[in-house]
Amino acid sequence: MNNEMLSILQKVKEGELSIEDAALQLKVDPFKDIDYAKIDFHRKYRQGYGEVIYGEGKTSEQIIGIISLMLENNQKSILITRLSYEKYKEISKVHNLSYDKDSRIGIVGDIKKPDGIGKIVVATGGTSDIPIAQEAALTSEFLGNEVLRLYDVGVSGLHRLLSYTDDLMSASVVIAIAGMEGALASVIGGLVDCPVIAVPTSIGYGASFNGVAALLSMLNSCASGVSVVNIDNGFGAGYMASMINHMKGNK
Amino acid sequence: MNNEMLSILQKVKEGELSIEDAALQLKVDPFKDIDYAKIDFHRKYRQGYGEVIYGEGKTSEQIIGIISLMLENNQKSILITRLSYEKYKEISKVHNLSYDKDSRIGIVGDIKKPDGIGKIVVATGGTSDIPIAQEAALTSEFLGNEVLRLYDVGVSGLHRLLSYTDDLMSASVVIAIAGMEGALASVIGGLVDCPVIAVPTSIGYGASFNGVAALLSMLNSCASGVSVVNIDNGFGAGYMASMINHMKGNK
Amino acid sequence: MNNEMLSILQKVKEGELSIEDAALQLKVDPFKDIDYAKIDFHRKYRQGYGEVIYGEGKTSEQIIGIISLMLENNQKSILITRLSYEKYKEISKVHNLSYDKDSRIGIVGDIKKPDGIGKIVVATGGTSDIPIAQEAALTSEFLGNEVLRLYDVGVSGLHRLLSYTDDLMSASVVIAIAGMEGALASVIGGLVDCPVIAVPTSIGYGASFNGVAALLSMLNSCASGVSVVNIDNGFGAGYMASMINHMKGNK
Amino acid sequence: MNNEMLSILQKVKEGELSIEDAALQLKVDPFKDIDYAKIDFHRKYRQGYGEVIYGEGKTSEQIIGIISLMLENNQKSILITRLSYEKYKEISKVHNLSYDKDSRIGIVGDIKKPDGIGKIVVATGGTSDIPIAQEAALTSEFLGNEVLRLYDVGVSGLHRLLSYTDDLMSASVVIAIAGMEGALASVIGGLVDCPVIAVPTSIGYGASFNGVAALLSMLNSCASGVSVVNIDNGFGAGYMASMINHMKGNK
Amino acid sequence: MNNEMLSILQKVKEGELSIEDAALQLKVDPFKDIDYAKIDFHRKYRQGYGEVIYGEGKTSEQIIGIISLMLENNQKSILITRLSYEKYKEISKVHNLSYDKDSRIGIVGDIKKPDGIGKIVVATGGTSDIPIAQEAALTSEFLGNEVLRLYDVGVSGLHRLLSYTDDLMSASVVIAIAGMEGALASVIGGLVDCPVIAVPTSIGYGASFNGVAALLSMLNSCASGVSVVNIDNGFGAGYMASMINHMKGNK
Amino acid sequence: MNNEMLSILQKVKEGELSIEDAALQLKVDPFKDIDYAKIDFHRKYRQGYGEVIYGEGKTSEQIIGIISLMLENNQKSILITRLSYEKYKEISKVHNLSYDKDSRIGIVGDIKKPDGIGKIVVATGGTSDIPIAQEAALTSEFLGNEVLRLYDVGVSGLHRLLSYTDDLMSASVVIAIAGMEGALASVIGGLVDCPVIAVPTSIGYGASFNGVAALLSMLNSCASGVSVVNIDNGFGAGYMASMINHMKGNK
Amino acid sequence: MNNEMLSILQKVKEGELSIEDAALQLKVDPFKDIDYAKIDFHRKYRQGYGEVIYGEGKTSEQIIGIISLMLENNQKSILITRLSYEKYKEISKVHNLSYDKDSRIGIVGDIKKPDGIGKIVVATGGTSDIPIAQEAALTSEFLGNEVLRLYDVGVSGLHRLLSYTDDLMSASVVIAIAGMEGALASVIGGLVDCPVIAVPTSIGYGASFNGVAALLSMLNSCASGVSVVNIDNGFGAGYMASMINHMKGNK
Amino acid sequence: MNNEMLSILQKVKEGELSIEDAALQLKVDPFKDIDYAKIDFHRKYRQGYGEVIYGEGKTSEQIIGIISLMLENNQKSILITRLSYEKYKEISKVHNLSYDKDSRIGIVGDIKKPDGIGKIVVATGGTSDIPIAQEAALTSEFLGNEVLRLYDVGVSGLHRLLSYTDDLMSASVVIAIAGMEGALASVIGGLVDCPVIAVPTSIGYGASFNGVAALLSMLNSCASGVSVVNIDNGFGAGYMASMINHMKGNK
Repeated sequence: MNNEMLSILQKVKEGELSIEDAALQLKVDPFKDIDYAKIDFHRKYRQGYGEVIYGEGKTSEQIIGIISLMLENNQKSILITRLSYEKYKEISKVHNLSYDKDSRIGIVGDIKKPDGIGKIVVATGGTSDIPIAQEAALTSEFLGNEVLRLYDVGVSGLHRLLSYTDDLMSASVVIAIAGMEGALASVIGGLVDCPVIAVPTSIGYGASFNGVAALLSMLNSCASGVSVVNIDNGFGAGYMASMINHMKGNK
Repeated sequence: MNNEMLSILQKVKEGELSIEDAALQLKVDPFKDIDYAKIDFHRKYRQGYGEVIYGEGKTSEQIIGIISLMLENNQKSILITRLSYEKYKEISKVHNLSYDKDSRIGIVGDIKKPDGIGKIVVATGGTSDIPIAQEAALTSEFLGNEVLRLYDVGVSGLHRLLSYTDDLMSASVVIAIAGMEGALASVIGGLVDCPVIAVPTSIGYGASFNGVAALLSMLNSCASGVSVVNIDNGFGAGYMASMINHMKGNK
Repeated sequence: MNNEMLSILQKVKEGELSIEDAALQLKVDPFKDIDYAKIDFHRKYRQGYGEVIYGEGKTSEQIIGIISLMLENNQKSILITRLSYEKYKEISKVHNLSYDKDSRIGIVGDIKKPDGIGKIVVATGGTSDIPIAQEAALTSEFLGNEVLRLYDVGVSGLHRLLSYTDDLMSASVVIAIAGMEGALASVIGGLVDCPVIAVPTSIGYGASFNGVAALLSMLNSCASGVSVVNIDNGFGAGYMASMINHMKGNK
Repeated sequence: MNNEMLSILQKVKEGELSIEDAALQLKVDPFKDIDYAKIDFHRKYRQGYGEVIYGEGKTSEQIIGIISLMLENNQKSILITRLSYEKYKEISKVHNLSYDKDSRIGIVGDIKKPDGIGKIVVATGGTSDIPIAQEAALTSEFLGNEVLRLYDVGVSGLHRLLSYTDDLMSASVVIAIAGMEGALASVIGGLVDCPVIAVPTSIGYGASFNGVAALLSMLNSCASGVSVVNIDNGFGAGYMASMINHMKGNK
Repeated sequence: MNNEMLSILQKVKEGELSIEDAALQLKVDPFKDIDYAKIDFHRKYRQGYGEVIYGEGKTSEQIIGIISLMLENNQKSILITRLSYEKYKEISKVHNLSYDKDSRIGIVGDIKKPDGIGKIVVATGGTSDIPIAQEAALTSEFLGNEVLRLYDVGVSGLHRLLSYTDDLMSASVVIAIAGMEGALASVIGGLVDCPVIAVPTSIGYGASFNGVAALLSMLNSCASGVSVVNIDNGFGAGYMASMINHMKGNK
Repeated sequence: MNNEMLSILQKVKEGELSIEDAALQLKVDPFKDIDYAKIDFHRKYRQGYGEVIYGEGKTSEQIIGIISLMLENNQKSILITRLSYEKYKEISKVHNLSYDKDSRIGIVGDIKKPDGIGKIVVATGGTSDIPIAQEAALTSEFLGNEVLRLYDVGVSGLHRLLSYTDDLMSASVVIAIAGMEGALASVIGGLVDCPVIAVPTSIGYGASFNGVAALLSMLNSCASGVSVVNIDNGFGAGYMASMINHMKGNK
Repeated sequence: MNNEMLSILQKVKEGELSIEDAALQLKVDPFKDIDYAKIDFHRKYRQGYGEVIYGEGKTSEQIIGIISLMLENNQKSILITRLSYEKYKEISKVHNLSYDKDSRIGIVGDIKKPDGIGKIVVATGGTSDIPIAQEAALTSEFLGNEVLRLYDVGVSGLHRLLSYTDDLMSASVVIAIAGMEGALASVIGGLVDCPVIAVPTSIGYGASFNGVAALLSMLNSCASGVSVVNIDNGFGAGYMASMINHMKGNK
Repeated sequence: MNNEMLSILQKVKEGELSIEDAALQLKVDPFKDIDYAKIDFHRKYRQGYGEVIYGEGKTSEQIIGIISLMLENNQKSILITRLSYEKYKEISKVHNLSYDKDSRIGIVGDIKKPDGIGKIVVATGGTSDIPIAQEAALTSEFLGNEVLRLYDVGVSGLHRLLSYTDDLMSASVVIAIAGMEGALASVIGGLVDCPVIAVPTSIGYGASFNGVAALLSMLNSCASGVSVVNIDNGFGAGYMASMINHMKGNK
């Protein structure tokens, strides 16, 4: 940002730019306002990835409009999360996109080639956690990561989890996804020496309180190197894991 | 109770007992009222064990009075829980009793010889859970059980827990005690084939909410054969475990 | 497990087994991975009973697949919990199974002959608790227990409960099921001298908070010998009760 | 109030009262403002009893001042709740008052002769509930009621409670006070045919949450004729019970 | 109960009754077990009113069966609460009953003539509280009380409430029903000198939390003489109010 | 009110008004009771604006009736909030009214010309908060305010918000509307020097708990000059903002 | 800010300022960093008032340092909130400041002359709310407002509150402060036609949950024109009220 | 682990190791049991760092014992968290250790030279968050990271935070620490393109609920790349950040 500012000031100094235009440029916001949304075309440069559309609470018309604008602005690939099948059908009449029913993720364009430091392991406690796990896995893959899926390895059958120790050990980041008592994050956190992103899921009944039990359990994990994202936030976990897996010095 | 009733009726029939006295005996309560407490001398017969005094919220004078009354009624051994050191000192001036500082348990008289079906294993997640674990262990021992203590075997260092697999396998009942994320109960529940009594502890900080996180985690255990007692209720777990370890057909 | 390990090592020593194969066998996981689920064929031996399928969150196709695999592996009887009527109809086209609408339990194969120490009494506070009670009762029966049902004996009409005192007294384990204020567990806990498994139900309105009021009430029971399972967890209570009713020394 | 208004208007009509004075009288508030408190001398007439001072959060100087003012205004007896022993000592240097340590109640003047319809029974689940019970009992007595105390009759020892059935049956109103699981209110509510005022107490530990468990239990009581006051609000229960016990048609 | 017992014992003494039969009669439970429900025919005598059926969670077949049995046992009038319109239609094919859509109350037989001490006033904060208010009002009327309805007199328009001061003053008991902030109970409690039963309703949105805000507000009422029943429990309030309005010494 | 009272008294003095009529007038309530609602025609004078009808929980018949009565009483414009499209259709058959689908607001009559001190800015964190924002904006406009809408300017893309600094600075009052983490109110509160009304929305998932996370965040805002209304209460915010924007000395 | 930016750009254009210095000035932050705190000297201009120091969690040394720095930068008056008496004593050795024990507020320098639009009324429900009320009142006075205190006018004695109707009517803004059930805000909100800032206090016991009951009650107020600040946040209410009372068009 | 296993099996094959000893070695747990704690000497290798002692709930004697054992086992540096000053004094009599009062961290031995990928920035919202921030910063430094501290840059004074944009941009990982409304994490998350670890602190009052408000706010962050650790868990954040900053492919 400094460089841009210096260059603007340079132009002012050299009389190439009027004061008013300079003031305008210094204040100008690098995003496009299409009434119902402010789309951010700079984020790609600022954060290094493509734009993501959070599908819930947007109409298919709005999503189609945002995709169109993005494509016009040379966005190559777009991830749409929480996209209902109905909206997907509507959108697919206008734009080419692939769709995963489990995770309700739609993708326009190609997925990035894996270019991360290592491998991301996505592990779930049960089969019912798979939708969230798929959201995490697809997000990670979209953002250029190799992903290994280990589903239904919950702690009540410990030998199942332990039989995958080598796989877990090979991870750069583990995403541990579980509902009910959420112990998976602690147990994996004690087994591996890489960061663990824990995702509580709203799976369960009774005193699981739609994921609160798992959330509290994960926040209180006695293993070091575990941090937590919101209940059912597979996208957030995949994004965070990708960011870690693409770590580089920021100097 | 039936037999007693029949015998009273028999006496009425045979004129050995007046109607009024019979009515009285049929209603008479088999406990002693000493103003601030109703002491129950029948429980020993009904529930098979000695009386227990919950020390908290009673003055040392009240506890001394209750002990005296019990001894007069041929109670051989008495367990006093949640007994502060100060009250213990006061009571020890009047009655002989042993005292365990960790668990704040006082015991008058001798502990019952182990006569249970098997062995009770008391396992804790960390060292800070030991006071509650001792309450559970001493209660179990008081009630006639062999107890094996496995302390500081929390799930974040899974190999520590697994190294005791044989001990866990040898249990008739396991009491799993943990604060923080409370995953110990689930992991043990998945390893053993005996009942597991889970005790959440109020150990922890932040979002552990004085044991609520562990409580919810344990209630939501995905392992079968796990049930839960109140936060920090070591006594309740020890009592329940002893009851199970002394199971017999009630026919 | 030790014996198996010794035998493998023996074979290595005697050259009957290559090091690599031994390592494999020592690590091999005794369950079958059918993509969406890891089925555990060892649990029967480890925990002594047949496998249970948690029906919620699985498609009927998945359940059919799991049943098929189990039958191929000589599983004789299978309990399916939380099975909707629709899924039951689908499954029944492929496999023989009985179905109980109240508890939404399906059973493939025969129920085990009662071989427990004594009798399990399942008591409910009201008529609305019956579905959960049936889940507990059928689970217990499936696992080889004699079950006595005492429904609608809540504490607001104490004489109804007291009129069944003899039945309660005859139990080896009591499962006390209640919503609303959940006092049933405490009152029964004070009457009997056997373990009581308390099940809070989500029945009720207003400040019952879908079973939280009953859960808290049961956790705080002032009767000894009461432990609690999750809200509406009839299966968990039935399983735990059966485990207790089949207690034996683990030496 | 109508009569007063008519009389004021009459005087205006007859020229005995200026318009301005009339307006003033129609608005005038029948209480005395002593800076830190607005004391209400009409309540005695409106609500039929003496004034009550809530002692907590007032200095002993403030309480002394309020008592003085009340006595000057011919208040014969004054009840002071939540009065610490230290404040009592200070006040007793200036005013004559009796003091009950358990309930922290101070009383200036004499207690009213019982003039209610019947008898108020105050029952507690345990000995630790006694301070709240005493607050309720003394409040009731202060307000002119005969009170019968039944302490330590909790539901975990049901026969103790049942042995007092006749006493309970003789009540006009029952105040049921319990902490922990609060089942006492439901059980008594099912036994008697008079109104039951339930008071949850903050006694207990773990998941009793300072009385919330008992509060929820009591709100969800399945017995009819039970209503609830705030946690530890012995005064409120005593006041409500007295009001009921002095019921009369308001025509 | 005593008299009955004495008479049985008398007969035993005189040989008119065998011991076994006496034992039986002393234990016999005065209710009828029709599989899915234990109906209580003694309550009418014990508690002075007709039986009430809680309609929710019972099928129309079950309700029809219970009504039939009651009528056979000379129950003259029956109140059915939480009765859906669909069930009402089904039942009305078999039994004569009136139905109120607002409160979902059905009544078999006639309502008792008012015979209470005074009048019950049912006041609501808004129009949306009317269904609960009707449940309370109809319950009170069913049980023999004169009821005055004051609807939509919430505290945000204080002059509306104050304009009914005379009506409020004429009450023997006031039932104050409000959602949202629940202040109605406190304000009425400060105006009248009779008992106030507060009913929080689940009306509202946002942080009203389905009635919890109103419940807490009412429990914390700074007015004396206010007690609370469960959220939306119009029946409970009507029952309690009727009990108070029929107060008599129990000697 | 004083003047009116004085004038009534004057008339009494001069014999123009009988005492009884005066008493009546002094007590008369300035609202109309149409059975299901007490409509308040004085509020317009007391609070300076037109009447508002809260549409939820009222039938379209009731709303039609209230509108008719208001129009008869010379109410010029009426705001109806939380009005479903179905009810709007019904009402529009009888009365002329405009309708906004997003906010579910209906308006009878004309909107007041802006006559406030300054401008109200309505800002939202995301596009999903727009329905609540529209409720706030339309309410403000109905009550005579100029409104500037700044939608989708959440804090995760800070430069978007900052690009509108001048607009924010120009506000007399800002309404900050956000779900999820609700940080918008704090950030805006730190930027502007006018009052900020914060509205948490129930948008979000997982641990947003239907707006509770945003509510708590806003209540804990470390910026000065921020106050909060209920979750999703766009109307309340618009009303409050209008009141502030029409501030005048009340002397 | 625009003007400043334009002036900097002008200087760059005219060669009076190097590009680097201009970039620096455009980025420079107008506050002073004294290691443990970033003090903001521009806020006075941005927000129109003096700086406030939040005393809690700062040592007296830190506070002394901040005051010194402020005085050096020509800050005329400083408000210190949540200042313990001990810290006040320490600070008073170095700086002149007045101190109010009730509210724990310290003030350096003089209070601003009242220059607001009208009068701020601070009303409390009880005497225990006075400390918070004083915090609100002194903050308002510090910021240049005339304040009228109405203490102990809670809704349980409605006539006390109503006797001050004229005072309430004369307010430009009302700050309504109450613990327990928090109904004061609703009742006042229904009486006045100016904005009401509600402050819940943590006063109370039992189910008041340290102010949560009052907070919820206030958030759910059915009166329009009420907004809420955090529990016990007297300062925030005083600040907000002052801001409203100094409203002017921001054009 | 595989290699070790193969080597053991190799020795068995070659007869160098008896079967029994092999079984023992395959099962042996690589930690030392000193009665009150199981110390884990393998973790250094498994997780790459030195051992950490959680000081709370351990006596100084226990801590001294653990340190001694660690030093004997060639542990070079030891981090002790939550160490009270009193315990530090006791320990320092036996072992050399440095101590930081703010964070209550003790360190035995030297801190590792920074060898991470980049720099860790620790930012706090206010001065009261500094103790937790120091725990995070010292933990990071202990584990070999360069740390930049940015304290008191909360969002209510946005320009303070923005003036440090360059510092934030230079980070490899940011630890964002805030109490109250916790918006700092979202705002920073929107500014930087590296992972953000959010730490809610228990600082605040009223409805901050000891950090719950900040926790919820952070979990609901609308910025991508934010994950959360437990309330006040500075150590956990420092550990996680260090792990990320030392990322390498695990192949």
